[in-house]
Amino acid sequence: MSPQTIRVCLSPALLPFYDLDNTIAVVIDIFRASSSMCYGIANGAQSIIPVAELDECLSYRKNGYLLAAERDGKVVEGFDFGNSPFAYTREKVAGKTIVLTTTNGTRAIRQCLGAQAVVIGSFLNITSLTDWLRQQDAHLLFVCSGWKNQFSLEDTVFAGAAIARLESAGLLLDDAAQAAKSLYLEGRNNLPAYLGKASHSKRMKHLNIEKDIAFCLQHDIVSTIPIMNGNALVALSHNG
Amino acid sequence: MSPQTIRVCLSPALLPFYDLDNTIAVVIDIFRASSSMCYGIANGAQSIIPVAELDECLSYRKNGYLLAAERDGKVVEGFDFGNSPFAYTREKVAGKTIVLTTTNGTRAIRQCLGAQAVVIGSFLNITSLTDWLRQQDAHLLFVCSGWKNQFSLEDTVFAGAAIARLESAGLLLDDAAQAAKSLYLEGRNNLPAYLGKASHSKRMKHLNIEKDIAFCLQHDIVSTIPIMNGNALVALSHNG
Repeated sequence: MSPQTIRVCLSPALLPFYDLDNTIAVVIDIFRASSSMCYGIANGAQSIIPVAELDECLSYRKNGYLLAAERDGKVVEGFDFGNSPFAYTREKVAGKTIVLTTTNGTRAIRQCLGAQAVVIGSFLNITSLTDWLRQQDAHLLFVCSGWKNQFSLEDTVFAGAAIARLESAGLLLDDAAQAAKSLYLEGRNNLPAYLGKASHSKRMKHLNIEKDIAFCLQHDIVSTIPIMNGNALVALSHNG
Repeated sequence: MSPQTIRVCLSPALLPFYDLDNTIAVVIDIFRASSSMCYGIANGAQSIIPVAELDECLSYRKNGYLLAAERDGKVVEGFDFGNSPFAYTREKVAGKTIVLTTTNGTRAIRQCLGAQAVVIGSFLNITSLTDWLRQQDAHLLFVCSGWKNQFSLEDTVFAGAAIARLESAGLLLDDAAQAAKSLYLEGRNNLPAYLGKASHSKRMKHLNIEKDIAFCLQHDIVSTIPIMNGNALVALSHNG
C-alpha cells in the first residue's frame, strides 16, 4: 500500500470523488445518528440496518423490527422512534434489530459500501475507535454526513478530534484533514460553546433537543464500535 | 430579503445544494485561476471567457482570441498559455480577449451562472472586492473551486480572509463560513507557511511553480474586480 493517508470527506455528495480502495470509512453524524448508533449497539441492539428512504424502512415492518425514522430533526409519524440517543437505551433496544433512516447519516453509510470496512464514529466511542483504527493497515476516510449535503461543523470537528489522536509521522493528511484538526484544536477546550455556533445546534435548539446535544458530546461512555456487516451495523469484535 | 447571509460552498460539486436567489457568488481558485483572472483584467485584458472544456476553448481560435488551457497544473499542448499569473501581464493581455479553461476554476464559474452576479476573488484584489461586497444588498456565497471537487485549504482560507473583513453584527454565517474564518485567523500571520501544508502547494512544488504561489499570496496589488457579463469576465465598473 502507498503511504497511509487520512482524508476527510466533508459531504456525502463528495464521496464519488474519493478512491475507497484499501480504505476504512468512518461515518460521522454527531447530531445525532452516529451517536445513537454507537449507543444503541453498545446497549445490546443486535443490529441496526441503515436505509436511505422511508419506504425501504417501512418495508421491514413485517419482520417485527423496530423502525426508526428521522427527517429534518423530527421523528416521522408512524415510526417507533427517530434518532434521539434517548430512544436507544438498553431497555428499548437490547436484543432488537432496528431499521433506521435519517436525513443525512444513513445515506452516507450506504454510499460508503465500496470501502474495505465501514465503521461508525462519535464522541461516545472515540477512544475505542481511534485505538482500533491505529492498528489497521489501511487508508482512513472520515465521512461527514453534514446537513443536506452541506458542511457541518460538528461532524468535521469530530473528524479533527479523531485525527489529533491518530496523527503520527508516517500518516499523510489531506487538506480537509488538516482543516478538521485545526478546527478541533480551536474548539476542544469548550466544545459545547464552540459547536453552539454551528447552524445545526441552532436548528436543534428550535426543536427542544438541547439535552440530545449535551448527550452526544460526552466522551467515551461506550467502547463498542459499530461496523457494517452485510446490510447491517453490528458490534465489532475487538479481535477482528 | 431575509437577513443577509454569508455562506461558503467548499466544492463546485456542492453548488446544486445552494440556493442562488438574491446571491452574489464570489468564485475563488487562489492557485492560480482566480488570481490570474484578477491580474489579467487589471492589466487591461478586454475580457476573459471562462469555458469548461478544451474543445470549447479551441473553438474560439478562429476569432483571434488568446487561448489558455490548464489541466493538472500544466499548460495544455497547443494552447497559447495556461493559468500562471506571469502569462497575464499588460504586455501580453492588454486589449485582448482570452478564452480560458482550467481544471477547477472555470468550471466553478460556469456552475454559478444562476446567481445575481458572479465576481472573482483573490488576495490580489481582496480589499477592493470586500469594499464592494460590503455595499451590496444581497446574500454572499463564496465558491471554492477546490481540486477536482475536493476541499482545498487555500481557497477556503481566502474565503475566511474575506469574511473576516466583511463580518458584522447583522450577517449570518453558515458553518462553512465560520470554519473558513477560523482557518484564516489561524494562518494569517504566516500564510505562505500555513498554506505550504496544503496538498495543492505540494502538488505545485513538483511543477516548479513556487514563484506562482508567492505571487498569488500578494495582497492588493490590483483594485479591479472581474465580473461575469454575459459569457465573459470584464472589469466591474465601481459605480455599478
